[in-house]
Amino acid sequence: MKTDIQIAQEAKMEHIRDVAARAGIREDELEFYGKYKAKLSDELWERIKDNEDGKLVLVTAINPTPAGEGKTTTTVGLGEAMAKLGKNALIALREPSLGPCFGIKGGAAGGGYAQVVPMEDLNLHFTGDFHAITSANNLLAAMLDNHIQQGNSLGIDPRQVVWKRCLDMNDRVLRNIVVGLGNKMDGMVREDHFVITVASEIMAILCLADDLADLKKRLGRIIVAYNFAGEPVTADDLQATGAMAALLKDAIKPNLIQTLEHTPAIVHGGPFANIAHGCNSVRATKMALKMSDITITEAGFGADLGAEKFFDIKCRMAGLKPDAVVLVATVRALKYNGGVAKSDLAEENLDALAKGIVNLEKHIENIQKYGVPVIVTLNSFVTDTEAENEFIRRFCEERGCEFALSEVWEKGGEGGIALAEKVLDTLENKKSEFHTLYEDGLSIREKIETIAREIYGAKGVVYEPAAAKQIDRIEALGFGAFPVCMAKNQYSLSDDAKKLGRPEGFDIHIREVYVSAGAGFVVALTGAIMTMPGLPKVPAANGIDVTDDGRITGLF
Amino acid sequence: MKTDIQIAQEAKMEHIRDVAARAGIREDELEFYGKYKAKLSDELWERIKDNEDGKLVLVTAINPTPAGEGKTTTTVGLGEAMAKLGKNALIALREPSLGPCFGIKGGAAGGGYAQVVPMEDLNLHFTGDFHAITSANNLLAAMLDNHIQQGNSLGIDPRQVVWKRCLDMNDRVLRNIVVGLGNKMDGMVREDHFVITVASEIMAILCLADDLADLKKRLGRIIVAYNFAGEPVTADDLQATGAMAALLKDAIKPNLIQTLEHTPAIVHGGPFANIAHGCNSVRATKMALKMSDITITEAGFGADLGAEKFFDIKCRMAGLKPDAVVLVATVRALKYNGGVAKSDLAEENLDALAKGIVNLEKHIENIQKYGVPVIVTLNSFVTDTEAENEFIRRFCEERGCEFALSEVWEKGGEGGIALAEKVLDTLENKKSEFHTLYEDGLSIREKIETIAREIYGAKGVVYEPAAAKQIDRIEALGFGAFPVCMAKNQYSLSDDAKKLGRPEGFDIHIREVYVSAGAGFVVALTGAIMTMPGLPKVPAANGIDVTDDGRITGLF
Repeated sequence: MKTDIQIAQEAKMEHIRDVAARAGIREDELEFYGKYKAKLSDELWERIKDNEDGKLVLVTAINPTPAGEGKTTTTVGLGEAMAKLGKNALIALREPSLGPCFGIKGGAAGGGYAQVVPMEDLNLHFTGDFHAITSANNLLAAMLDNHIQQGNSLGIDPRQVVWKRCLDMNDRVLRNIVVGLGNKMDGMVREDHFVITVASEIMAILCLADDLADLKKRLGRIIVAYNFAGEPVTADDLQATGAMAALLKDAIKPNLIQTLEHTPAIVHGGPFANIAHGCNSVRATKMALKMSDITITEAGFGADLGAEKFFDIKCRMAGLKPDAVVLVATVRALKYNGGVAKSDLAEENLDALAKGIVNLEKHIENIQKYGVPVIVTLNSFVTDTEAENEFIRRFCEERGCEFALSEVWEKGGEGGIALAEKVLDTLENKKSEFHTLYEDGLSIREKIETIAREIYGAKGVVYEPAAAKQIDRIEALGFGAFPVCMAKNQYSLSDDAKKLGRPEGFDIHIREVYVSAGAGFVVALTGAIMTMPGLPKVPAANGIDVTDDGRITGLF
Repeated sequence: MKTDIQIAQEAKMEHIRDVAARAGIREDELEFYGKYKAKLSDELWERIKDNEDGKLVLVTAINPTPAGEGKTTTTVGLGEAMAKLGKNALIALREPSLGPCFGIKGGAAGGGYAQVVPMEDLNLHFTGDFHAITSANNLLAAMLDNHIQQGNSLGIDPRQVVWKRCLDMNDRVLRNIVVGLGNKMDGMVREDHFVITVASEIMAILCLADDLADLKKRLGRIIVAYNFAGEPVTADDLQATGAMAALLKDAIKPNLIQTLEHTPAIVHGGPFANIAHGCNSVRATKMALKMSDITITEAGFGADLGAEKFFDIKCRMAGLKPDAVVLVATVRALKYNGGVAKSDLAEENLDALAKGIVNLEKHIENIQKYGVPVIVTLNSFVTDTEAENEFIRRFCEERGCEFALSEVWEKGGEGGIALAEKVLDTLENKKSEFHTLYEDGLSIREKIETIAREIYGAKGVVYEPAAAKQIDRIEALGFGAFPVCMAKNQYSLSDDAKKLGRPEGFDIHIREVYVSAGAGFVVALTGAIMTMPGLPKVPAANGIDVTDDGRITGLF
């Protein structure tokens, strides 16, 4: 069997100019990055911005398991299938992070015959968006420490600096560091931290900003520290906003690449799905809606995190109205949720399936709470049996969902036609009554509790004393109207990663709460969230190479 | 008077495809980065590699002063003048570093009407080369610390880690840090340091590598640390070479942009000119030589650092044979060398000129030691007087040099025609007998002493005890045949920045010596060299902004 990178490297790509033409984009509206990547220019936006929006389809999934779900693969394959059916569809994906490629093998460009290409570029530097974010993040950090060094007229309390440096690299020794050692000219000593670039608030900001003007407003609001009086100090206070925006002026433009079948795919932005909202950029989604009849996008992790934030953060802020949700599951993952060990997933097991399918059930119910029609799709594996597929089909149909098998990994767009037809049918016949889960006016505690009860199925919410104080402070500072961004493990609906299926009777524990004032949400952490990964004992980097004529090997 | 950025932003650029065509480059041999930047592909190199080389002209300068010299301005203007004279000339420049743009105003794209454009892009992310170097540098660092964390089978001594992390940012608090704090999963605690990206050995390597194969050889040889037995541990030992090369596969391709007069300019690489060799990439220079009759390139700082390293490191390693040297001076800088205060430089002062011109004299003599014909040019200022110009002209002609005024800052290529004619005359009538200053076979001490006596005019060399030990160790490790890269202040021919003019009777003090095994040279430090700059009290970043439609302001 061919690996993903083999399939990707064998692909005969079209010049991106020709791919773009298929989406009605003119050559002079593109900014090329080589032959197979382009940025979508501001001139393009100016031309299309008054077009009517097409339909918006979100692809999400059950809680992820080690068995694999294939959300990006499904998104890509569904887009290809729409093209095969002659529909004017566009795919809108997140950009992957460079650092993790060198840790554990596995990219983020879809899989099998449902991939976007060029996948090496996408997984490495791509068009430099993440590098621009790294630069802007670290410029702000340098200006902050320079302000302290040069007299600290803002009275920044070095013990209350909340802005962290970042790198797009899995580098655990940078999690907790001491900076400013040496002598007087080498700065003030203080504790500091690096996060991976996707965890930078600037990533979330870039993905939520409507345009450069909105980007600057959001950047300016970033809280970098608190002063000795306990008041927030912002990027605007440091006069850093303009320079950061200058660094991001190209990064805010969405990128266009293609699928293996030359379907246009917009790939832009990639914030963490725990401490941030985990969706591609608003700018990309809006451009796609203006240029296509159907935009197919995805959100990070399972629906409890990804879809919830897509609805309650991204759609709320950007005024988007999703028309349908594709919920991806696999037979293997449902059996895993039913207690089957990873090594036994190849065997038919209807009892385990019946036990594990409650995870899918809860996600269906959750999405229905937002008023959006659901189509469940099974990302097929060769080991799935007819009886298992049928069991799931009946289960879904009894709950008012459409159901379709998806074989896009193996067959590309052809394998997604059944799913595409169900999606088209839904868009035509089922009206979305989309609304967010909660109103802006609720208190932060009410918002957290609404998400915990309604989406996670929790009995209640327990606040650690520090978290309770933080919430009071955030509301006192005037950020109470922000939506809440929950940082929770992705594996369970609860905050205990080991509770699979559909746990009940549990409490959600809020350990820490802080505000991302630029992004415009309040982050509630339910446990220790890793914002700087490490490398494993044998890093994938050991096996990556490039031939003398420039072909990359060993990546995935 | 218009600022450089105003002039640059008013420029009507040509599409880079048309600029490239002027150098005989086909559209399909370009990798576009937007409309005005492109990378030169490997396919182009394959087509031209067997062409005969054109002539090679180095632009260098007297020791830099606060009065300004204009080396890049002269290089750009000379290239434009050659084009005006109908010559097939190419310019080969260094890429500027992003970080310093946010510190003190001042870019590195030439000045006035002798600039390369788009200057904002060039000074910010450009085509991402420096970001790729930052990533490769920090991947190696992460793999090193991960190796220590995961059992340290190579026996790396955490006290003898010599590889530093890097960022392209002026950030003084990162000069000296402690990493690995936290708990067991957060790594081993050790002291660490960040340098600015241009000071990374990977920058020097990228600029000296012939091709990807050579790049990988050099990357693999990098010494990252010493083990407990005192033996070097390399990037190859960490199995990091292939992954680093994969990150650099596009960065090794030279970039093409244009001057304000649409003359093609190759801009690629930019290593420090003290701890590294300060020249654009070998790959870029070789490509230019294959495509043009005359390649005009530059080297960092004054001729004592820049030209010496261009000859003894770059030309030695790459087998280049320079045909002429343009030595840039200004009346103001020579008067400054003669003791005139910066505020009084506008007044005619022939006595001070006669006193300061010895600096120029020494550089003329130095270049003549390499057997290369010299053309001195005065980068004109409105305050220069006829008598001053004449004095310098006579001085040069008495020493067997050609002389020409250059008014390229004010007039672009037109202002460089006098200089271009002298250069053409020299190329036609004076044969270069280029040879390096010293042979590989000399000991490291002999090489240092040869440079100190012959180029700097020193009486002798004094080694600090630690440096003497380091030299012995480096020779014992088998690196004795490497050329020496002197890290010295750029303002004086001596190692005391205050000794202007042509100091005599001084010693050069060698404080530290280490090997850059990948780059292939031994670095000898004559004092504290700053490898991570800081921001000033009022950083330039405070005044940088971008308009809502994407135009950058306040940069320079």
